[in-house]
Amino acid sequence: MGEKMVLVGGGLAGSLMSIYLAKKGFDVHLYERRSDMRGGNYQGGRSINLALSVRGITALGKVGLTKEILDISIPMYGRMMHSTAGELNYQAYGRDDQAIYSVSRGELNIRLLQLADQYPNIHMYFDHKCYKMDLDQNVAWFEDVNGHKHEVKGDVFLATDGAFSALREAMIKNPRHNFSQTYESHGYKELEIVPGPNATFQMEEKALHIWPRSSFMMIALPNPGGNFTCTLFMPYDGEVSFSKLNKDEEIMAFFKEYFADAVPMMPNLLEDFKGNPIGHLATMRTYPWVKNKSALMGDAAHAIVPFYGQGMNCSFEDCVVLDDCISKFEGNWDKILHEYQISRKTNADAIADLALQNFIEMRDLVGLPEFLRKKKIEKGLVDNYPGLYMSQYERVTFSNDNYRDALNAGEKNDRFIQHIIDHQLEDQLENADTMMPLLNDWFA
Amino acid sequence: MGEKMVLVGGGLAGSLMSIYLAKKGFDVHLYERRSDMRGGNYQGGRSINLALSVRGITALGKVGLTKEILDISIPMYGRMMHSTAGELNYQAYGRDDQAIYSVSRGELNIRLLQLADQYPNIHMYFDHKCYKMDLDQNVAWFEDVNGHKHEVKGDVFLATDGAFSALREAMIKNPRHNFSQTYESHGYKELEIVPGPNATFQMEEKALHIWPRSSFMMIALPNPGGNFTCTLFMPYDGEVSFSKLNKDEEIMAFFKEYFADAVPMMPNLLEDFKGNPIGHLATMRTYPWVKNKSALMGDAAHAIVPFYGQGMNCSFEDCVVLDDCISKFEGNWDKILHEYQISRKTNADAIADLALQNFIEMRDLVGLPEFLRKKKIEKGLVDNYPGLYMSQYERVTFSNDNYRDALNAGEKNDRFIQHIIDHQLEDQLENADTMMPLLNDWFA
Repeated sequence: MGEKMVLVGGGLAGSLMSIYLAKKGFDVHLYERRSDMRGGNYQGGRSINLALSVRGITALGKVGLTKEILDISIPMYGRMMHSTAGELNYQAYGRDDQAIYSVSRGELNIRLLQLADQYPNIHMYFDHKCYKMDLDQNVAWFEDVNGHKHEVKGDVFLATDGAFSALREAMIKNPRHNFSQTYESHGYKELEIVPGPNATFQMEEKALHIWPRSSFMMIALPNPGGNFTCTLFMPYDGEVSFSKLNKDEEIMAFFKEYFADAVPMMPNLLEDFKGNPIGHLATMRTYPWVKNKSALMGDAAHAIVPFYGQGMNCSFEDCVVLDDCISKFEGNWDKILHEYQISRKTNADAIADLALQNFIEMRDLVGLPEFLRKKKIEKGLVDNYPGLYMSQYERVTFSNDNYRDALNAGEKNDRFIQHIIDHQLEDQLENADTMMPLLNDWFA
Repeated sequence: MGEKMVLVGGGLAGSLMSIYLAKKGFDVHLYERRSDMRGGNYQGGRSINLALSVRGITALGKVGLTKEILDISIPMYGRMMHSTAGELNYQAYGRDDQAIYSVSRGELNIRLLQLADQYPNIHMYFDHKCYKMDLDQNVAWFEDVNGHKHEVKGDVFLATDGAFSALREAMIKNPRHNFSQTYESHGYKELEIVPGPNATFQMEEKALHIWPRSSFMMIALPNPGGNFTCTLFMPYDGEVSFSKLNKDEEIMAFFKEYFADAVPMMPNLLEDFKGNPIGHLATMRTYPWVKNKSALMGDAAHAIVPFYGQGMNCSFEDCVVLDDCISKFEGNWDKILHEYQISRKTNADAIADLALQNFIEMRDLVGLPEFLRKKKIEKGLVDNYPGLYMSQYERVTFSNDNYRDALNAGEKNDRFIQHIIDHQLEDQLENADTMMPLLNDWFA
């Protein structure tokens, strides 16, 4: 039996990581604050469904779960924009077969826990809340649902306990540990578009729907039951904001003005709007991620805003990289954890920045003619020169390239597209004689 | 008797603020984690002496302490730069009578506590450590030196408990409270230049001494006893760094190479270097500063690096502004605290930025010919056009202008000085016929 690995947090990253570790023969102990969600008492975290993309699929593939998870997911091949007048405008995310997958967060977590349960060297403890951590001595303390306290020693501790990680809280009290938490001026509220007759979808099923309204937006992701989970992102305060929507009439008038085409499909709108809390959006960054034999993973290391659909995918990629480091430097935990944090930090920062940028794109730019013109040029490039030109979205979503490289490539792509506009080459996109030398010059 | 005001932390800001509040008739309760430093057990915080400037003097003036404090201080009229070869180069900070004042942090704190003690409506509790805070209910819990726990209710709570504030820790757990802590790659170590015979100063007494060495530096501030407190600021790691100085020979070789003129005046160098800890440098920012009836002040709200000598001065200015807000909106605490945080946040951010900029200036730029050329031009402007041209240093150090305005003015000053260089006007600085129209054009 290998070292005793203690995972603090049995959410998506924690449960996947526990399986990776179990496959390597470690003695794995997984602690989770909440009850066992397999008991049917799943409380959705901050999102009911998530968008699984290539990085997440790669990570699930390592434990043989890809097919099982895709079977309970709905592929979304593009964005469907809804104008205020109800006009639809579709943008494919990539080439024909490229999709992101809408999947239930709870269902995905349950499948991971079910798989973890099959490993005799994984021990799970639910209803155990970490309330203290001694990073120097490798000891954590948990309080169970009966108020009993448990002291847990381990060889290595992994913090997979999310954006408000107890382990990270202990870590950043040490000198020279940087940390920031930055909240957006927008909050969000989850709503629902219900199924039509016989659980049919009332809108295009295989798309992510967006109602971009400049300073705010609504999105909708399909669920297997025929319904869509909608999320309204809006400022807390200001002219059009949550603070202005209190009375029933105010709420209904707002929705009828801005989301008229959706309102008839949202019979529970008022009830949902008044009953559901306003969620908060924060970016959290910290460094180092490692202290002694403890390391941060997932949201504990890098909480990001949800606008690139990469929170879970990035956390799963943390697991892949850590697993690779464990293989590479077997037994040398200082090296393993150091290499892991060096490799992941720059990429976590990059996806945090990309997610913030994408909020502007989704709520505002997607509705602007200049943006649509550039997207059309990009589509011409992606379709005609697949080996040579990769869009930023493709790198982030449909590849396992470093997020940092995707961020840098995106800036270069923007300059290239501007070059095409400046040199009036928009009608030459399919002309390989013109484009190939140019693309080779810029990207080869 | 007015509302019950609870101050968490009896350092410089806490003790001064308690006097302001007592003068207004509040029921003031001042809690301090450490023992009463008037008992002779003063443990210097992170600096033994500090540089008091106009903002701090203004704040002390409101409680009639100016003369008493200046009497125990040493004025420093300029910077004395020491080259590696031991050559001296002096730059005045301002006009003839303008100085910053080297004062003992401990002595200043004691004088403030002594004054506070004269107010029957100030109640002081030493050896009381705040360990929990309920911001919604306005209750704090303190543990005394005997392990007894005390629940303290109050009408208003002020966090004057420094960079690692317990109250701020409770505050930033609330949603939409932003926070960041960013450590420098440099640490610091305190050393000493001893007095000469009969407690005489071995270097120019009325100056702040700097040994700028580009990636690191040493500074020295005079004390009334004839000694200087030296601080070495240096990277933790790298070619020239704390990590490289371990053996006695390494330490001595380093000091003889870079601070040869100081070494003969530092007989306790080895002992001090090996015995004193490496201090850390961090910038901490947060917002909001207010939750319900609790507010952050001083380092709890804005820990900054020490390179502009403004940490204490800025904290004292917090007290002045809060005191003004209390007068202006008497009894309306929501307005008082809101106005206070709005007014101070932008200025605290500005001085945090200025302090970071000044580190580069002190350790690196002050040794460069191009920088000295610009400083000479600026001195020509300051000396000849006192009403029209104000240097950034003057605004920060010798005025009560907003830090934000000083930051902005500094950027404009830089452009103006570059204009003078570009237009070859350096020999025209005393020619009012040329300069006045230009100055009026830029600054009037």
